[in-house]
Amino acid sequence: MNPTLHIIKVGGNIIDDADKLNHFLSDFAKLNGPKILVHGGGKLATQLAKDMDVPQQMVDGRRITDAATLRIVTMVYAGWINKNIVAILNANQSPAIGITGADGEAIIAHKRIHPNIDYGFVGDVDQVNTMLFSSLLEKELTIVVAPITQDKNGQLLNTNADTIAQEIAKAMSDLYNTTLIYSFEKKGVLKDVNDESSLIRSMNQDSYQILKNENLIFAGMVPKLDNAFAAIQSGVGRVIIGDGMELTALVNGTSGTTIQG
Amino acid sequence: MNPTLHIIKVGGNIIDDADKLNHFLSDFAKLNGPKILVHGGGKLATQLAKDMDVPQQMVDGRRITDAATLRIVTMVYAGWINKNIVAILNANQSPAIGITGADGEAIIAHKRIHPNIDYGFVGDVDQVNTMLFSSLLEKELTIVVAPITQDKNGQLLNTNADTIAQEIAKAMSDLYNTTLIYSFEKKGVLKDVNDESSLIRSMNQDSYQILKNENLIFAGMVPKLDNAFAAIQSGVGRVIIGDGMELTALVNGTSGTTIQG
Repeated sequence: MNPTLHIIKVGGNIIDDADKLNHFLSDFAKLNGPKILVHGGGKLATQLAKDMDVPQQMVDGRRITDAATLRIVTMVYAGWINKNIVAILNANQSPAIGITGADGEAIIAHKRIHPNIDYGFVGDVDQVNTMLFSSLLEKELTIVVAPITQDKNGQLLNTNADTIAQEIAKAMSDLYNTTLIYSFEKKGVLKDVNDESSLIRSMNQDSYQILKNENLIFAGMVPKLDNAFAAIQSGVGRVIIGDGMELTALVNGTSGTTIQG
Repeated sequence: MNPTLHIIKVGGNIIDDADKLNHFLSDFAKLNGPKILVHGGGKLATQLAKDMDVPQQMVDGRRITDAATLRIVTMVYAGWINKNIVAILNANQSPAIGITGADGEAIIAHKRIHPNIDYGFVGDVDQVNTMLFSSLLEKELTIVVAPITQDKNGQLLNTNADTIAQEIAKAMSDLYNTTLIYSFEKKGVLKDVNDESSLIRSMNQDSYQILKNENLIFAGMVPKLDNAFAAIQSGVGRVIIGDGMELTALVNGTSGTTIQG
Protein backbone atom coordinates (compact mmCIF):
# COMPACT_ATOMS: atom_id res chain seq x y z
CA MET A 1 0.00 0.00 0.00
CA ASN A 2 1.23 3.48 -0.88
CA PRO A 3 2.13 5.82 2.01
CA THR A 4 -0.31 8.62 2.83
CA LEU A 5 0.45 12.13 1.57
CA HIS A 6 -1.44 15.24 2.64
CA ILE A 7 -1.67 18.14 0.20
CA ILE A 8 -3.15 21.16 1.92
CA LYS A 9 -4.13 24.49 0.41
CA VAL A 10 -4.24 27.49 2.74
CA GLY A 11 -5.91 30.66 1.58
CA GLY A 12 -5.48 34.40 1.85
CA ASN A 13 -7.62 35.07 4.92
CA ILE A 14 -5.31 32.94 7.07
CA ILE A 15 -2.13 34.25 5.45
CA ASP A 16 -3.17 37.85 6.10
CA ASP A 17 -3.66 37.24 9.84
CA ALA A 18 -0.48 36.43 11.81
CA ASP A 19 -2.36 34.78 14.70
CA LYS A 20 -4.45 32.60 12.41
CA LEU A 21 -1.38 31.68 10.36
CA ASN A 22 0.56 30.65 13.48
CA HIS A 23 -2.40 28.59 14.70
CA PHE A 24 -2.80 26.90 11.32
CA LEU A 25 0.93 26.17 10.91
CA SER A 26 1.22 24.82 14.44
CA ASP A 27 -1.52 22.27 13.62
CA PHE A 28 -0.02 21.60 10.21
CA ALA A 29 3.44 20.97 11.71
CA LYS A 30 1.96 18.30 14.01
CA LEU A 31 0.49 16.34 11.12
CA ASN A 32 2.41 13.08 10.74
CA GLY A 33 3.92 11.81 7.51
CA PRO A 34 4.80 13.50 4.23
CA LYS A 35 2.97 16.74 3.51
CA ILE A 36 2.80 19.54 0.98
CA LEU A 37 1.41 23.01 1.70
CA VAL A 38 0.20 25.19 -1.16
CA HIS A 39 -0.43 28.79 -0.22
CA GLY A 40 -2.34 31.57 -1.93
CA GLY A 41 -1.64 35.24 -1.96
CA GLY A 42 -3.62 37.38 0.41
CA LYS A 43 -3.93 41.14 0.43
CA LEU A 44 -0.23 41.98 0.57
CA ALA A 45 0.17 41.84 -3.23
CA THR A 46 -2.72 44.28 -3.72
CA GLN A 47 -1.25 46.60 -1.10
CA LEU A 48 2.20 46.44 -2.67
CA ALA A 49 0.78 47.18 -6.12
CA LYS A 50 -0.84 50.27 -4.61
CA ASP A 51 2.45 51.34 -2.97
CA MET A 52 4.26 50.84 -6.27
CA ASP A 53 1.53 52.60 -8.30
CA VAL A 54 0.92 49.52 -10.43
CA PRO A 55 -2.78 49.55 -11.38
CA GLN A 56 -4.49 46.17 -10.90
CA GLN A 57 -7.12 44.83 -13.24
CA MET A 58 -9.38 41.93 -12.22
CA VAL A 59 -11.56 39.92 -14.62
CA ASP A 60 -13.91 37.29 -13.17
CA GLY A 61 -12.02 37.35 -9.87
CA ARG A 62 -8.71 36.64 -11.60
CA ARG A 63 -5.89 39.15 -11.57
CA ILE A 64 -4.66 40.26 -14.99
CA THR A 65 -0.92 39.78 -14.63
CA ASP A 66 1.16 42.27 -16.58
CA ALA A 67 4.97 42.29 -16.24
CA ALA A 68 4.95 44.69 -13.27
CA THR A 69 2.28 42.64 -11.50
CA LEU A 70 4.19 39.41 -12.14
CA ARG A 71 7.16 40.94 -10.37
CA ILE A 72 4.93 41.96 -7.46
CA VAL A 73 3.27 38.57 -7.01
CA THR A 74 6.62 36.79 -7.34
CA MET A 75 8.05 39.02 -4.62
CA VAL A 76 5.06 38.61 -2.31
CA TYR A 77 4.17 34.93 -2.90
CA ALA A 78 7.60 33.36 -3.53
CA GLY A 79 9.48 35.84 -1.35
CA TRP A 80 7.75 37.05 1.75
CA ILE A 81 4.81 34.64 2.24
CA ASN A 82 6.69 31.49 1.24
CA LYS A 83 9.79 32.16 3.35
CA ASN A 84 7.75 33.38 6.30
CA ILE A 85 5.81 30.09 6.28
CA VAL A 86 9.02 28.05 5.90
CA ALA A 87 10.61 29.84 8.87
CA ILE A 88 7.54 29.27 11.07
CA LEU A 89 7.40 25.56 10.14
CA ASN A 90 11.10 25.15 10.89
CA ALA A 91 10.49 26.76 14.28
CA ASN A 92 7.68 24.23 14.82
CA GLN A 93 10.04 21.29 14.26
CA SER A 94 8.66 20.60 10.80
CA PRO A 95 11.68 21.27 8.54
CA ALA A 96 10.38 22.82 5.33
CA ILE A 97 11.61 23.83 1.90
CA GLY A 98 9.79 26.51 -0.06
CA ILE A 99 9.56 26.30 -3.84
CA THR A 100 7.73 27.71 -6.83
CA GLY A 101 6.89 25.73 -9.93
CA ALA A 102 10.08 27.13 -11.48
CA ASP A 103 12.36 25.52 -8.88
CA GLY A 104 13.65 22.20 -10.10
CA GLU A 105 11.08 22.62 -12.90
CA ALA A 106 8.54 21.43 -10.32
CA ILE A 107 5.44 22.60 -12.21
CA ILE A 108 5.45 23.35 -15.91
CA ALA A 109 2.58 25.47 -17.20
CA HIS A 110 1.65 27.46 -20.28
CA LYS A 111 0.42 31.01 -20.62
CA ARG A 112 -3.37 30.92 -20.53
CA ILE A 113 -5.05 30.79 -23.93
CA HIS A 114 -8.45 32.50 -23.98
CA PRO A 115 -10.51 33.60 -26.99
CA ASN A 116 -11.40 37.05 -25.61
CA ILE A 117 -9.31 37.91 -22.58
CA ASP A 118 -5.53 38.30 -22.36
CA TYR A 119 -4.83 37.31 -18.76
CA GLY A 120 -1.19 38.29 -19.17
CA PHE A 121 1.39 36.15 -17.37
CA VAL A 122 -1.12 33.66 -15.98
CA GLY A 123 -0.33 29.98 -16.17
CA ASP A 124 -2.40 26.83 -16.65
CA VAL A 125 -0.64 23.71 -15.40
CA ASP A 126 0.64 21.05 -17.82
CA GLN A 127 2.90 18.85 -15.73
CA VAL A 128 4.02 18.18 -12.16
CA ASN A 129 7.55 16.88 -11.56
CA THR A 130 6.61 14.04 -9.20
CA MET A 131 10.26 12.92 -9.00
CA LEU A 132 11.28 16.25 -7.49
CA PHE A 133 8.39 16.32 -5.02
CA SER A 134 8.98 12.73 -3.85
CA SER A 135 12.72 13.17 -3.51
CA LEU A 136 12.24 16.21 -1.25
CA LEU A 137 9.56 14.38 0.76
CA GLU A 138 11.90 11.40 1.17
CA LYS A 139 14.33 13.76 2.90
CA GLU A 140 11.56 14.37 5.45
CA LEU A 141 11.13 17.94 4.23
CA THR A 142 7.71 19.53 4.13
CA ILE A 143 7.26 21.26 0.78
CA VAL A 144 5.74 24.74 0.76
CA VAL A 145 4.59 25.74 -2.73
CA ALA A 146 4.06 29.35 -3.83
CA PRO A 147 1.54 29.80 -6.68
CA ILE A 148 4.06 30.74 -9.36
CA THR A 149 4.89 28.34 -12.19
CA GLN A 150 7.07 28.46 -15.29
CA ASP A 151 6.59 27.65 -18.94
CA LYS A 152 9.02 25.54 -20.97
CA ASN A 153 10.89 28.67 -22.05
CA GLY A 154 11.57 29.91 -18.53
CA GLN A 155 8.76 32.45 -18.34
CA LEU A 156 7.39 32.78 -14.79
CA LEU A 157 3.58 32.59 -14.61
CA ASN A 158 1.08 33.55 -11.92
CA THR A 159 -1.04 30.46 -11.25
CA ASN A 160 -4.14 29.74 -9.19
CA ALA A 161 -3.19 28.06 -5.91
CA ASP A 162 -6.31 25.84 -5.77
CA THR A 163 -5.42 24.48 -9.19
CA ILE A 164 -1.80 23.90 -8.19
CA ALA A 165 -2.92 21.93 -5.12
CA GLN A 166 -5.26 19.84 -7.25
CA GLU A 167 -2.63 19.16 -9.93
CA ILE A 168 -0.01 18.15 -7.36
CA ALA A 169 -2.52 15.86 -5.62
CA LYS A 170 -3.51 14.25 -8.91
CA ALA A 171 0.07 13.68 -10.04
CA MET A 172 1.25 12.38 -6.67
CA SER A 173 -1.64 9.87 -6.53
CA ASP A 174 0.45 7.48 -8.63
CA LEU A 175 2.93 7.19 -5.76
CA TYR A 176 0.95 8.02 -2.63
CA ASN A 177 -2.44 7.57 -1.06
CA THR A 178 -3.35 11.26 -1.32
CA THR A 179 -5.61 13.46 0.78
CA LEU A 180 -6.29 16.94 -0.62
CA ILE A 181 -7.60 19.56 1.79
CA TYR A 182 -8.82 22.99 0.77
CA SER A 183 -8.76 25.07 3.92
CA PHE A 184 -10.47 28.44 3.92
CA GLU A 185 -12.52 30.73 6.16
CA LYS A 186 -15.80 28.73 6.16
CA LYS A 187 -16.70 25.45 7.87
CA GLY A 188 -16.98 23.84 4.44
CA VAL A 189 -19.62 23.91 1.71
CA LEU A 190 -22.65 25.69 3.16
CA LYS A 191 -26.24 25.59 1.90
CA ASP A 192 -26.58 29.13 3.25
CA VAL A 193 -23.31 31.03 2.97
CA ASN A 194 -24.23 33.12 6.04
CA ASP A 195 -25.12 30.16 8.23
CA GLU A 196 -22.24 27.97 9.35
CA SER A 197 -24.72 25.40 10.70
CA SER A 198 -25.91 24.73 7.13
CA LEU A 199 -22.70 22.78 6.48
CA ILE A 200 -22.99 19.95 3.97
CA ARG A 201 -20.91 17.13 5.49
CA SER A 202 -20.46 15.19 2.29
CA MET A 203 -21.21 15.63 -1.34
CA ASN A 204 -21.00 13.50 -4.45
CA GLN A 205 -21.24 14.43 -8.13
CA ASP A 206 -25.02 13.82 -8.15
CA SER A 207 -25.83 15.88 -5.07
CA TYR A 208 -23.47 18.63 -6.33
CA GLN A 209 -25.35 18.84 -9.64
CA ILE A 210 -28.70 19.01 -7.87
CA LEU A 211 -27.54 21.78 -5.52
CA LYS A 212 -25.91 23.65 -8.41
CA ASN A 213 -29.06 23.44 -10.54
CA GLU A 214 -31.09 24.78 -7.61
CA ASN A 215 -28.58 27.68 -7.24
CA LEU A 216 -27.79 26.49 -3.71
CA ILE A 217 -24.03 26.68 -4.23
CA PHE A 218 -22.43 30.07 -3.57
CA ALA A 219 -20.90 31.22 -6.87
CA GLY A 220 -17.44 31.66 -5.33
CA MET A 221 -17.43 27.97 -4.34
CA VAL A 222 -18.05 26.61 -7.84
CA PRO A 223 -14.44 26.73 -9.13
CA LYS A 224 -13.21 25.17 -5.85
CA LEU A 225 -15.79 22.36 -6.09
CA ASP A 226 -15.12 21.77 -9.77
CA ASN A 227 -11.44 21.43 -8.84
CA ALA A 228 -12.33 19.07 -6.00
CA PHE A 229 -14.43 16.74 -8.18
CA ALA A 230 -11.81 16.79 -10.93
CA ALA A 231 -9.26 15.70 -8.32
CA ILE A 232 -11.39 12.81 -7.02
CA GLN A 233 -12.05 11.64 -10.56
CA SER A 234 -8.30 11.65 -11.26
CA GLY A 235 -7.30 9.29 -8.47
CA VAL A 236 -6.97 11.54 -5.42
CA GLY A 237 -7.98 9.44 -2.42
CA ARG A 238 -9.87 12.00 -0.36
CA VAL A 239 -10.83 15.64 -0.86
CA ILE A 240 -12.02 17.75 2.07
CA ILE A 241 -13.06 21.41 2.12
CA GLY A 242 -13.25 23.24 5.42
CA ASP A 243 -12.09 25.71 8.04
CA GLY A 244 -8.32 26.16 8.27
CA MET A 245 -8.67 26.85 11.99
CA GLU A 246 -9.82 23.23 12.44
CA LEU A 247 -7.12 21.49 10.44
CA THR A 248 -6.77 18.46 12.71
CA ALA A 249 -10.53 17.81 12.55
CA LEU A 250 -10.47 18.23 8.75
CA VAL A 251 -7.70 15.65 8.47
CA ASN A 252 -9.61 13.29 10.78
CA GLY A 253 -12.78 13.81 8.72
CA THR A 254 -14.75 15.10 11.71
CA SER A 255 -15.17 18.58 10.22
CA GLY A 256 -15.64 20.11 6.78
CA THR A 257 -17.24 18.80 3.61
CA THR A 258 -15.96 15.51 2.20
CA ILE A 259 -16.10 15.24 -1.59
CA GLN A 260 -17.00 11.78 -2.85
CA GLY A 261 -16.57 10.39 -6.34
CA MET B 1 39.56 12.46 -5.50
CA ASN B 2 36.54 14.57 -4.65
CA PRO B 3 34.46 15.95 -7.53
CA THR B 4 34.85 19.64 -8.40
CA LEU B 5 32.22 22.08 -7.16
CA HIS B 6 31.99 25.72 -8.27
CA ILE B 7 30.51 28.25 -5.86
CA ILE B 8 30.00 31.55 -7.62
CA LYS B 9 28.89 34.85 -6.15
CA VAL B 10 27.25 37.35 -8.50
CA GLY B 11 26.81 40.93 -7.39
CA GLY B 12 24.33 43.74 -7.70
CA ASN B 13 25.71 45.49 -10.79
CA ILE B 14 25.03 42.39 -12.91
CA ILE B 15 21.67 41.67 -11.28
CA ASP B 16 20.47 45.21 -11.98
CA ASP B 17 21.22 44.94 -15.70
CA ALA B 18 19.07 42.44 -17.65
CA ASP B 19 21.56 42.14 -20.54
CA LYS B 20 24.53 41.56 -18.23
CA LEU B 21 22.54 39.06 -16.17
CA ASN B 22 21.54 37.08 -19.26
CA HIS B 23 25.16 37.08 -20.48
CA PHE B 24 26.44 35.95 -17.08
CA LEU B 25 23.80 33.23 -16.65
CA SER B 26 24.34 31.91 -20.16
CA ASP B 27 28.05 31.40 -19.33
CA PHE B 28 27.20 30.02 -15.90
CA ALA B 29 24.72 27.51 -17.38
CA LYS B 30 27.46 26.14 -19.66
CA LEU B 31 29.79 25.42 -16.75
CA ASN B 32 30.09 21.64 -16.32
CA GLY B 33 29.58 19.78 -13.08
CA PRO B 34 27.87 20.69 -9.81
CA LYS B 35 27.51 24.40 -9.13
CA ILE B 36 26.04 26.83 -6.64
CA LEU B 37 25.20 30.45 -7.40
CA VAL B 38 24.93 32.97 -4.56
CA HIS B 39 23.38 36.27 -5.54
CA GLY B 40 23.33 39.64 -3.86
CA GLY B 41 20.65 42.26 -3.88
CA GLY B 42 21.09 45.15 -6.25
CA LYS B 43 19.19 48.40 -6.32
CA LEU B 44 15.68 46.97 -6.46
CA ALA B 45 15.42 46.66 -2.67
CA THR B 46 16.39 50.31 -2.21
CA GLN B 47 13.86 51.35 -4.86
CA LEU B 48 11.12 49.25 -3.28
CA ALA B 49 11.85 50.71 0.18
CA LYS B 50 11.41 54.14 -1.37
CA ASP B 51 8.11 53.12 -3.01
CA MET B 52 6.89 51.70 0.29
CA ASP B 53 8.10 54.72 2.31
CA VAL B 54 10.37 52.58 4.45
CA PRO B 55 13.40 54.73 5.41
CA GLN B 56 16.73 52.93 4.94
CA GLN B 57 19.65 53.36 7.31
CA MET B 58 23.17 52.29 6.29
CA VAL B 59 26.11 51.92 8.72
CA ASP B 60 29.56 51.09 7.27
CA GLY B 61 27.96 50.02 3.98
CA ARG B 62 25.65 47.56 5.73
CA ARG B 63 21.92 48.00 5.69
CA ILE B 64 20.24 48.25 9.09
CA THR B 65 17.45 45.71 8.76
CA ASP B 66 14.31 46.59 10.69
CA ALA B 67 11.18 44.42 10.37
CA ALA B 68 9.83 46.36 7.37
CA THR B 69 13.20 46.18 5.61
CA LEU B 70 13.49 42.44 6.29
CA ARG B 71 10.18 41.99 4.52
CA ILE B 72 11.43 44.06 1.57
CA VAL B 73 14.74 42.22 1.17
CA THR B 74 13.01 38.85 1.53
CA MET B 75 10.57 39.85 -1.22
CA VAL B 76 13.25 41.19 -3.54
CA TYR B 77 16.09 38.70 -2.91
CA ALA B 78 14.19 35.45 -2.26
CA GLY B 79 11.22 36.39 -4.44
CA TRP B 80 11.98 38.32 -7.58
CA ILE B 81 15.75 38.02 -8.05
CA ASN B 82 16.01 34.38 -7.00
CA LYS B 83 13.10 33.14 -9.12
CA ASN B 84 14.08 35.27 -12.08
CA ILE B 85 17.56 33.68 -12.03
CA VAL B 86 16.09 30.18 -11.62
CA ALA B 87 13.76 30.69 -14.59
CA ILE B 88 16.61 31.97 -16.80
CA LEU B 89 18.85 29.03 -15.83
CA ASN B 90 16.05 26.56 -16.57
CA ALA B 91 15.64 28.19 -19.98
CA ASN B 92 19.41 27.72 -20.49
CA GLN B 93 19.14 23.95 -19.90
CA SER B 94 20.66 24.21 -16.45
CA PRO B 95 17.79 23.07 -14.18
CA ALA B 96 17.96 25.11 -10.98
CA ILE B 97 16.37 25.27 -7.56
CA GLY B 98 16.31 28.54 -5.63
CA ILE B 99 16.62 28.54 -1.87
CA THR B 100 17.30 30.77 1.10
CA GLY B 101 19.12 29.66 4.24
CA ALA B 102 15.70 29.00 5.77
CA ASP B 103 14.76 26.35 3.20
CA GLY B 104 15.59 22.90 4.48
CA GLU B 105 17.45 24.75 7.25
CA ALA B 106 20.21 25.20 4.67
CA ILE B 107 22.08 27.95 6.53
CA ILE B 108 21.64 28.61 10.24
CA ALA B 109 22.77 32.01 11.50
CA HIS B 110 22.38 34.19 14.56
CA LYS B 111 21.35 37.81 14.85
CA ARG B 112 24.50 39.90 14.74
CA ILE B 113 25.96 40.81 18.14
CA HIS B 114 27.76 44.14 18.17
CA PRO B 115 28.81 46.26 21.15
CA ASN B 116 27.57 49.59 19.72
CA ILE B 117 25.37 49.06 16.69
CA ASP B 118 22.06 47.22 16.48
CA TYR B 119 22.05 45.97 12.91
CA GLY B 120 18.50 44.68 13.33
CA PHE B 121 17.62 41.43 11.56
CA VAL B 122 21.11 40.83 10.18
CA GLY B 123 22.57 37.35 10.42
CA ASP B 124 26.08 35.96 10.92
CA VAL B 125 26.42 32.38 9.69
CA ASP B 126 26.89 29.50 12.15
CA GLN B 127 26.30 26.39 10.09
CA VAL B 128 25.78 25.15 6.54
CA ASN B 129 23.65 22.05 5.96
CA THR B 130 26.04 20.24 3.62
CA MET B 131 23.69 17.22 3.45
CA LEU B 132 20.95 19.35 1.90
CA PHE B 133 23.30 21.03 -0.58
CA SER B 134 24.87 17.75 -1.70
CA SER B 135 21.55 15.95 -2.03
CA LEU B 136 20.22 18.69 -4.33
CA LEU B 137 23.46 18.71 -6.34
CA GLU B 138 23.26 14.92 -6.71
CA LYS B 139 19.92 15.45 -8.45
CA GLU B 140 21.84 17.52 -11.00
CA LEU B 141 20.14 20.69 -9.84
CA THR B 142 22.04 23.95 -9.77
CA ILE B 143 21.39 25.66 -6.44
CA VAL B 144 20.65 29.40 -6.45
CA VAL B 145 21.02 30.91 -2.99
CA ALA B 146 19.38 34.18 -1.92
CA PRO B 147 21.17 36.02 0.91
CA ILE B 148 18.56 35.37 3.59
CA THR B 149 19.24 32.97 6.46
CA GLN B 150 17.38 31.85 9.56
CA ASP B 151 18.24 31.49 13.21
CA LYS B 152 17.45 28.40 15.28
CA ASN B 153 14.12 29.91 16.32
CA GLY B 154 12.85 30.49 12.81
CA GLN B 155 13.71 34.20 12.58
CA LEU B 156 14.64 35.21 9.03
CA LEU B 157 17.87 37.24 8.84
CA ASN B 158 19.38 39.42 6.11
CA THR B 159 22.90 38.10 5.46
CA ASN B 160 25.86 39.28 3.40
CA ALA B 161 26.05 37.31 0.13
CA ASP B 162 29.89 37.28 0.01
CA THR B 163 29.93 35.69 3.45
CA ILE B 164 27.29 33.13 2.47
CA ALA B 165 29.34 32.13 -0.59
CA GLN B 166 32.45 31.78 1.56
CA GLU B 167 30.68 29.74 4.26
CA ILE B 168 29.12 27.39 1.69
CA ALA B 169 32.49 26.93 -0.03
CA LYS B 170 34.22 26.22 3.29
CA ALA B 171 31.61 23.70 4.43
CA MET B 172 31.41 21.92 1.08
CA SER B 173 35.20 21.52 0.95
CA ASP B 174 34.85 18.39 3.09
CA LEU B 175 32.98 16.70 0.22
CA TYR B 176 34.16 18.48 -2.92
CA ASN B 177 37.20 20.03 -4.50
CA THR B 178 35.85 23.58 -4.29
CA THR B 179 36.42 26.67 -6.42
CA LEU B 180 34.99 29.92 -5.06
CA ILE B 181 34.57 32.78 -7.51
CA TYR B 182 33.58 36.32 -6.53
CA SER B 183 32.37 37.96 -9.70
CA PHE B 184 31.84 41.71 -9.75
CA GLU B 185 32.23 44.74 -12.03
CA LYS B 186 36.06 44.99 -12.03
CA LYS B 187 38.67 42.78 -13.71
CA GLY B 188 39.85 41.67 -10.28
CA VAL B 189 41.94 43.25 -7.53
CA LEU B 190 43.43 46.43 -9.02
CA LYS B 191 46.43 48.42 -7.78
CA ASP B 192 44.69 51.51 -9.16
CA VAL B 193 40.92 51.20 -8.90
CA ASN B 194 40.49 53.42 -11.98
CA ASP B 195 42.93 51.47 -14.14
CA GLU B 196 41.81 48.00 -15.24
CA SER B 197 45.33 47.33 -16.58
CA SER B 198 46.67 47.46 -13.00
CA LEU B 199 45.14 44.04 -12.34
CA ILE B 200 46.98 41.90 -9.78
CA ARG B 201 46.90 38.37 -11.27
CA SER B 202 47.63 36.56 -8.04
CA MET B 203 47.98 37.39 -4.40
CA ASN B 204 49.04 35.56 -1.30
CA GLN B 205 48.72 36.48 2.37
CA ASP B 206 52.15 38.16 2.39
CA SER B 207 51.64 40.29 -0.72
CA TYR B 208 48.13 41.21 0.52
CA GLN B 209 49.56 42.48 3.82
CA ILE B 210 52.21 44.54 2.04
CA LEU B 211 49.67 46.13 -0.33
CA LYS B 212 47.27 46.73 2.56
CA ASN B 213 49.98 48.40 4.66
CA GLU B 214 50.86 50.63 1.72
CA ASN B 215 47.15 51.56 1.33
CA LEU B 216 47.18 50.10 -2.17
CA ILE B 217 44.00 48.10 -1.64
CA PHE B 218 40.75 49.96 -2.35
CA ALA B 219 38.81 50.06 0.96
CA GLY B 220 35.72 48.42 -0.56
CA MET B 221 37.82 45.38 -1.50
CA VAL B 222 39.10 44.66 2.01
CA PRO B 223 36.08 42.71 3.30
CA LYS B 224 35.97 40.69 0.05
CA LEU B 225 39.68 39.88 0.30
CA ASP B 226 39.48 39.06 3.98
CA ASN B 227 36.64 36.66 3.07
CA ALA B 228 38.73 35.20 0.25
CA PHE B 229 41.78 34.52 2.45
CA ALA B 230 39.58 33.09 5.21
CA ALA B 231 38.12 30.70 2.63
CA ILE B 232 41.52 29.54 1.35
CA GLN B 233 42.73 28.99 4.90
CA SER B 234 39.65 26.87 5.62
CA GLY B 235 40.18 24.33 2.87
CA VAL B 236 38.62 25.95 -0.20
CA GLY B 237 40.67 24.76 -3.18
CA ARG B 238 40.74 27.92 -5.30
CA VAL B 239 39.46 31.47 -4.83
CA ILE B 240 39.24 33.84 -7.79
CA ILE B 241 37.98 37.44 -7.89
CA GLY B 242 37.10 39.00 -11.22
CA ASP B 243 34.74 40.35 -13.85
CA GLY B 244 31.38 38.57 -14.05
CA MET B 245 31.29 39.29 -17.79
CA GLU B 246 34.31 36.96 -18.21
CA LEU B 247 33.08 34.00 -16.16
CA THR B 248 34.53 31.30 -18.41
CA ALA B 249 37.99 32.91 -18.26
CA LEU B 250 37.70 33.26 -14.47
CA VAL B 251 36.90 29.56 -14.15
CA ASN B 252 39.83 28.69 -16.44
CA GLY B 253 42.11 30.94 -14.40
CA THR B 254 42.99 33.11 -17.42
CA SER B 255 41.35 36.23 -15.98
CA GLY B 256 40.86 37.80 -12.54
CA THR B 257 42.91 37.67 -9.37
CA THR B 258 43.74 34.27 -7.93
CA ILE B 259 44.02 34.16 -4.15
CA GLN B 260 46.71 31.86 -2.85
CA GLY B 261 47.18 30.50 0.65
